[in-house]
Formats: sequence, structure tokens, C-alpha cells
Amino acid sequence: MRANPQLDENGKLRHFLTIEGLRRPLLTDILDTAESFAGVTERTVKKVPLLRGKTIVNLFFEPSTRTRTTFELAAKRLSADVLNIQASVSATTKGETLLDTLHNLEAMHCDMFVVRHCDSGAAHFMAKHVAPHVAVINAGDGSHAHPTQAMLDMFTIRRHKGEFGALRVAIVGDILHSRVARSQIHALTTLGVNEVRIIAPKTLIPAHAEALGVHVYHDLREGLRDVDVVIMLRLQNERMGSAFLPGEHEYYRLFGLTEEKLALAKPDVTVMHPGPINRGVEIDSAVADGPRSVILQQVSYGIAVRMAIMSMAMHQRGE
Amino acid sequence: MRANPQLDENGKLRHFLTIEGLRRPLLTDILDTAESFAGVTERTVKKVPLLRGKTIVNLFFEPSTRTRTTFELAAKRLSADVLNIQASVSATTKGETLLDTLHNLEAMHCDMFVVRHCDSGAAHFMAKHVAPHVAVINAGDGSHAHPTQAMLDMFTIRRHKGEFGALRVAIVGDILHSRVARSQIHALTTLGVNEVRIIAPKTLIPAHAEALGVHVYHDLREGLRDVDVVIMLRLQNERMGSAFLPGEHEYYRLFGLTEEKLALAKPDVTVMHPGPINRGVEIDSAVADGPRSVILQQVSYGIAVRMAIMSMAMHQRGE
Amino acid sequence: MRANPQLDENGKLRHFLTIEGLRRPLLTDILDTAESFAGVTERTVKKVPLLRGKTIVNLFFEPSTRTRTTFELAAKRLSADVLNIQASVSATTKGETLLDTLHNLEAMHCDMFVVRHCDSGAAHFMAKHVAPHVAVINAGDGSHAHPTQAMLDMFTIRRHKGEFGALRVAIVGDILHSRVARSQIHALTTLGVNEVRIIAPKTLIPAHAEALGVHVYHDLREGLRDVDVVIMLRLQNERMGSAFLPGEHEYYRLFGLTEEKLALAKPDVTVMHPGPINRGVEIDSAVADGPRSVILQQVSYGIAVRMAIMSMAMHQRGE
Repeated sequence: MRANPQLDENGKLRHFLTIEGLRRPLLTDILDTAESFAGVTERTVKKVPLLRGKTIVNLFFEPSTRTRTTFELAAKRLSADVLNIQASVSATTKGETLLDTLHNLEAMHCDMFVVRHCDSGAAHFMAKHVAPHVAVINAGDGSHAHPTQAMLDMFTIRRHKGEFGALRVAIVGDILHSRVARSQIHALTTLGVNEVRIIAPKTLIPAHAEALGVHVYHDLREGLRDVDVVIMLRLQNERMGSAFLPGEHEYYRLFGLTEEKLALAKPDVTVMHPGPINRGVEIDSAVADGPRSVILQQVSYGIAVRMAIMSMAMHQRGE
Repeated sequence: MRANPQLDENGKLRHFLTIEGLRRPLLTDILDTAESFAGVTERTVKKVPLLRGKTIVNLFFEPSTRTRTTFELAAKRLSADVLNIQASVSATTKGETLLDTLHNLEAMHCDMFVVRHCDSGAAHFMAKHVAPHVAVINAGDGSHAHPTQAMLDMFTIRRHKGEFGALRVAIVGDILHSRVARSQIHALTTLGVNEVRIIAPKTLIPAHAEALGVHVYHDLREGLRDVDVVIMLRLQNERMGSAFLPGEHEYYRLFGLTEEKLALAKPDVTVMHPGPINRGVEIDSAVADGPRSVILQQVSYGIAVRMAIMSMAMHQRGE
Repeated sequence: MRANPQLDENGKLRHFLTIEGLRRPLLTDILDTAESFAGVTERTVKKVPLLRGKTIVNLFFEPSTRTRTTFELAAKRLSADVLNIQASVSATTKGETLLDTLHNLEAMHCDMFVVRHCDSGAAHFMAKHVAPHVAVINAGDGSHAHPTQAMLDMFTIRRHKGEFGALRVAIVGDILHSRVARSQIHALTTLGVNEVRIIAPKTLIPAHAEALGVHVYHDLREGLRDVDVVIMLRLQNERMGSAFLPGEHEYYRLFGLTEEKLALAKPDVTVMHPGPINRGVEIDSAVADGPRSVILQQVSYGIAVRMAIMSMAMHQRGE
């Protein structure tokens, strides 16, 4: 059996590439470690010296202010030095290969790469080729995985709903193209939630979705019935009006989350969204800004969860 | 009476949005605090730990290397962590609203926003919506205000001319479109200078300018007579040749500051400019680089003044 | 005799602009100081407090992620504060002169400028005009010089081959347009290597090259015979197919380094390249990734060498 490339010989985190293949105790360990960091980000002096003298590179081949910012803040609050590299202005435009870029940064004694790339598998590819002391964190690769987002979502669910075993969770939107959804599904099933539902038009559901252990719904009202948590996905504007989708107005009518549709879920339902939200496209402002929304808390927890994952991959724990 | 949104219940600085409505003792307090920081920037180790563990976001919706750089340096010399966000590459391009961007950064436990925006009122809008622990500093909003620039100008005047009461100060150039001029006028009148003059072609003077407590001149030679301080404004190239202005050559002939025209002012006149200067457009190089110019000192003082305002808004004073 | 503008009155490094005119003991001193920093970059905590509280500005008028990154890392590992300024987004686009930009940053109490500029002589020009306490490091100016690259190459040669006196070194490629080659030739001859060869098509050799103390070859096989070190230059794609050069395929056939051609050199020959490499243009992947290549070590040493030069120019030595 091939060893999991994310773990070292003792089963500890070495890279963080995908939720798939990680076991429940490790996910729980990440959530517990993040709890200890959640306190740090609320202090007057929001820094711990855990990664002082380490160099962390944000290597982004897709633009993303939001995700890059959360990783940069997490790294700085761990006292690491941070380098931001936008691939569009980097040496790859001079024809250098991804591997050459990687080996060059490694030669500069960088300790960790936080990678976002438009190609599925890019983070795994890098993890396979880095030196033994270097860790790779996947910050989103193609339509494959976005595991730190999934872990901050799990942290949010645990904080707001308690134990996973009794929960019914629905994910709504473009499941087919979403690396976020893919990672959430693996995390939710590994953590043992009672039921995971995915809700989307037929054109936005992957083939053989049931094999992932989820229930598929094509009707939002039906799928929302009695759920504890609903996770809305961002609708990529560029897909709108394509073969996959009707117009924005029609999508909102059928799959946009409104107070009226939300009333079908449990009374204490929690509403989540990875952001940035499209108001009036996949979610109504009244819901996004309403009392059941924890969308901004997700962002907050994102720093603590990323601090946890980064320090664990560098074999440094919190307090 | 509506409370001043820049002040807390004890009358202390909470945000820094505009000079308008601030009282003389507070402006003097800022200048005194800046004096204590002016020493720090000349030390071998130019850092104080006042804002260690705080996160300051430079949120720039207009490009500006110069202003962004002075805020970044001020923040780093206070030992804060700094995030630079250029709005053109930020989530707002994905359709996220300004308020969503703000709330997301706030959720990441950022402590202060330094904002530049092309819309007048943007900084007030943000100050109105941030959480109680977050401060907003206006780094220029539309043609409304640029209060940190005005305060560094006041610091420069006090350093080079002493008390404000006896001074005659002229501001020359495009008063109509200048957020710098607007903030300078409020600062100068609040600090009680003897006379403020504005000098410009009729098309570049705001309607009802006299209501601001200034004297209006349309002839540079006449307006310069016996002034102690002359502040030249940068002429925005994009206005040149428009309905507002004759050509560059004609403007220089009438409103460009030369040694010959400057001879009409007091012999010890001080020449200021917020920069970057247009040599041979609004000011002759002989004047800009001459003995009466304090243009580069303004830049120096800008760091100390911004350190003062940032630390005061975070309720941390200098040594 | 005009004093060397790079040295202070005691002959110590004040700026670092070009290898030309520096004497062997100073170059050796840089290499020895770099040795002490090479250890720092391999520690767990890769930082020394030598330049704490200093502000270093990367002022890049040409884009370069790689070189900018090495200087940024070197500065951060010396505990300095770093400002990155890309000239394309800086005030110079508003018509400010280079000198105005410089004086403004100087007024902000910046301590060192690392400059890259497309014009030969730009770094000298800046060094001539900065204040006495400010140091200028040339990170590449036009086709003139790239002295920190040359010093890291010398460091690499000394580490891998020992003393310079016995060595035969060949530089292969577009010598005519290469600031790297020019600086390497000065460094190699100053450090007293036995023989420096330059190998290139006639169109890519500068006039009067022999006056630099080198032997000129137009045939790669002939020039490689019995060399200890071969330094390949990057071929700028934009020159390909011009009057200077035949097509890519033809260039590779004649001047591309392959295992077969490399067999003509000494058996323990060391292969170097300043990066980024063009695989299959000037160098075959089998050579670039092969056992005689030290291309990635060059990148590593680059950090230590830049730490040495930066700290020496600030009159701070390593441990």
C-alpha cells in the first residue's frame, strides 16, 4: 500500500494537500490545535513566536487577495517571515518550469510553500518534489481540493453545532466545479456527520456523486428540509449563461437561499458560505447578514485553523 | 448635537477622517506627539514596540506608492504587522461590496484600516461600519480630505516658523479639486493663523470659498505679497488643456512659482509642496531645490506625524 | 586620482555598484564574510539582528521576482524592514524624476537602496546623489554590471574548486549584452584565475574583448577543452531570430551545452548558470540537472553573499 504523501513515518502531518485519505483523529487534532490559536487572534498582542526565523512563501498562480491574506496573517502571527509571489509576475513567465521555480525558492532555504494553482494536482506535484524539510500547503488546486477552507468550515460547525454525529449538512451550488465542496464532503464524511446532502441543478452535479457518500437533491426546498447546517457555494460568474446554467435571475429563483426557503430547515439552522458572496445570486442579503449566518465567523476561524495547520506541518504546536 | 464620529466618548481620537470639526487642542496634541516620534526616525534602530502584535491594513482603492509607503514605514516603525491591499487586485473585482471587504478584513482581527478611495466620504462610510475596536485613517478620499497630509504640513510650519498666530499662509493651485487644500484650510484656520490666502485661476476656486475663512486671489504676484509660507499644489496633468485650464506653458507663466515671483513674499518665506512636484509646471526647479524649500523635510515629518496619529487612534502614546 | 565612489575614506565598502576597480582583498573579504552567513541560512532560526531597525528599499525599475526575492530574504534574515517598490506603479509614472523618487525615499529615513534599472549607470548615478548615511547596491543596471551575481558566482567557485589561481573558467553565451558576464570577468581576473575564456558567436562578443584579459572562442568544443568551470549565460528570448542570432535550434546545435560537449572539459568540471535556465536552448536538461551542475547551490549562496554585502555596506559584520 502506498503511504499517504501528506504524513511522515509517524503519521504526523508533513504536507496538507487534501482531506481525502486523512483519518478522523488527525482532523480532530487540527480542530483542537486551532482552538488554542483562536485565543491568540483575540489578544492585544496577536503573535506567538512558534515559527520565528522560518520563511513561508505564498506562491499564488491564481489571483486571490482573500485567501492569500489569511495565510499571510496566519504566518505573521506565528512570527514567520512571509514572501508573496504572484506567478503572473514571476519567473515562470520567462519560460521557467514550475519545478525550477520550486527548486529555486527551496535553494533560498524557504521552509513552507502555500500554493494556489489552476491545475488540479499541482500541490501534490510540488509536495512530491520538495526537499525533506519543506512543507507544502494546498491553498486550492484546480477543481480538486481546498482543504484549509474545508477545515475552517469544520471548525465553524463544531463551534456552532457541537458534535458532528447528529448533524445533517447540505451543500448547495456548483458542486461539479467546486474544490471547496469536494474537500467539505471528505471532511464531513470522515468526521462522521449523520447525512451530507448536495443540492444543485443536474448539470452541476458530478457523475457518480453518490459514491462519495452523499445524497443528491435537485430541488432546494426538498434538500433543505430538516438540515442543521447549509453551506452555500459561490457561483462563478463566468459560468453563468453557459451550457451549465440558466441566467442569473432563473438560478436565484431556483437555488438562491432566501429566508422563505430557509424556513424549511431546522429552526436553529446555521448558514455558511466560503465567500466572497454574490448577494442576490446564490444568497439573499437578508440571509447572509441575518442571525443564522456565521459567514464572518468563518473568516475569523480561518486564521486560527491556518495557524494550526501551518505549525503542525512544521511540527510546532500551540500553547 | 451629533457627536463627532472621529472621537470617543472622552474626546480622544478614535478615527482620523477629516480636520473639519476637530478642535485646536487635539491638533496641537497630534503635533506634540509627532515631535516625540521625530526623534525615533533619526535613531540607529528606528523602531518602537508600541503597536507590536497589531495588524494594520493599507487598503488602497487608488494607486499611490508614495502615501502607501509612508504609512507602511510608520506602521513598521511602530512594530505593527502591515498588509498592503491594492483594490484593483482585491475581491471587489469579483463583485464583493466595499462593506463586505471591510467586514472580512475585520473578521481577520485587523486593528486599523488606512484607506485611500476615489469617492469622497469613503473613509467616513467605513468608520461608520467598523467594529468598536477598529480604527480608520483617511489617506485621501475623492476631493474631500487628506488630513494626515494637512497635519504633516502643520508640523512643518510649526517647526520652521514657530507659532501659528502671526503667520500669513498662501495656498496656490487647483483648490477646487484638491483634498489636500481643503484639509490644509481647515487645519490652518483651526490653529489660528493670521491669514489664509488661496490663489488660483477663477475656474479652480470653489464656489463660496470665502465661507471657509480664506482670502481669494486670482493673481499670484498680488497674493504672494508679504506671506510667510507658500504651499504649492500639484497640478494634475489630466486637467491640463481642459475647460478648467489653459496650456501648461500659460499656466506656468501665470501661476508657476519662480524666484522672481517669490521675491514678493517675506524674505524668510518657507516654500512647501505635498509632492510629487511637476518641475516647470507649478514650480521652478530653482525654487523647489532652493534654500527656502522644505519639501523634503515635509516627507520626513510625514512619517513621524503618521506614527503619532496611528498610535493615538490605537490609544498608545509615544515616549 | 579620482577616489572609488564605492569606498569610504578608509577603503571600506560604502556602496556596491560594480566589481570594476575593487581590489582582491576586498573581494576576498566579501567571500569570507559570506561564509559566516552561509551557516545562518541553514539554522532553524534563520535570523540575525544585525540590521534591526534599518529600512531597506528594493527599488526595481525592471521586473524581477527572483533577484528581488533573494534581496528581500537576505534583508529579512538580517532583521531589516523591507519595502518593495516596483517602478511601474511608482511615482515616476506621474512624471517625477528618478532623483526626486530617491530623495523622497531618503527623506523617509531609508538606509539602503537595492536598485535594478534598465539604464547602464543608474546605480552609480544614485550613489552619487544619496545622503552620506545611505548605501546603494546595484542589482543590475542595463548591460553594465550585476556585481552581487558575480560575487555569488565567485563564492560558488571557491566553495567547489578551492583557490582561484589554478583555474580555467569559460563563460558561454551572449557576452555582448550580458551585465552578468561583464561583472564575472572583472571578478575572475581580479581574483587571479589562470585563464578566462569567453565563448560566443562573433555577433555576441563585444569589440576589443581581449582588452578585458580574456581569450575569445567562437567554437564551443574548442573553448571547453580542459576548463575547470563553465558558466552558461541565459539567452534572452527576445534576441532570438534577430540580426544577432540564428534560430533557437541552430543556436542549441552550436552553443547549447550537452553532456557530449561537456566531455571535452576536465572530468571534474563544474557547471554554473545565473538562472532562470532555458532548457534545450542554452543548456540541456541532462547537464542542468546532472552531477556537475551547481546551479541550485548558486541560488543558496546568493542569500549569504547578499547578506554579507548588505551588512558590510552598513558597516555591520557577521558573527
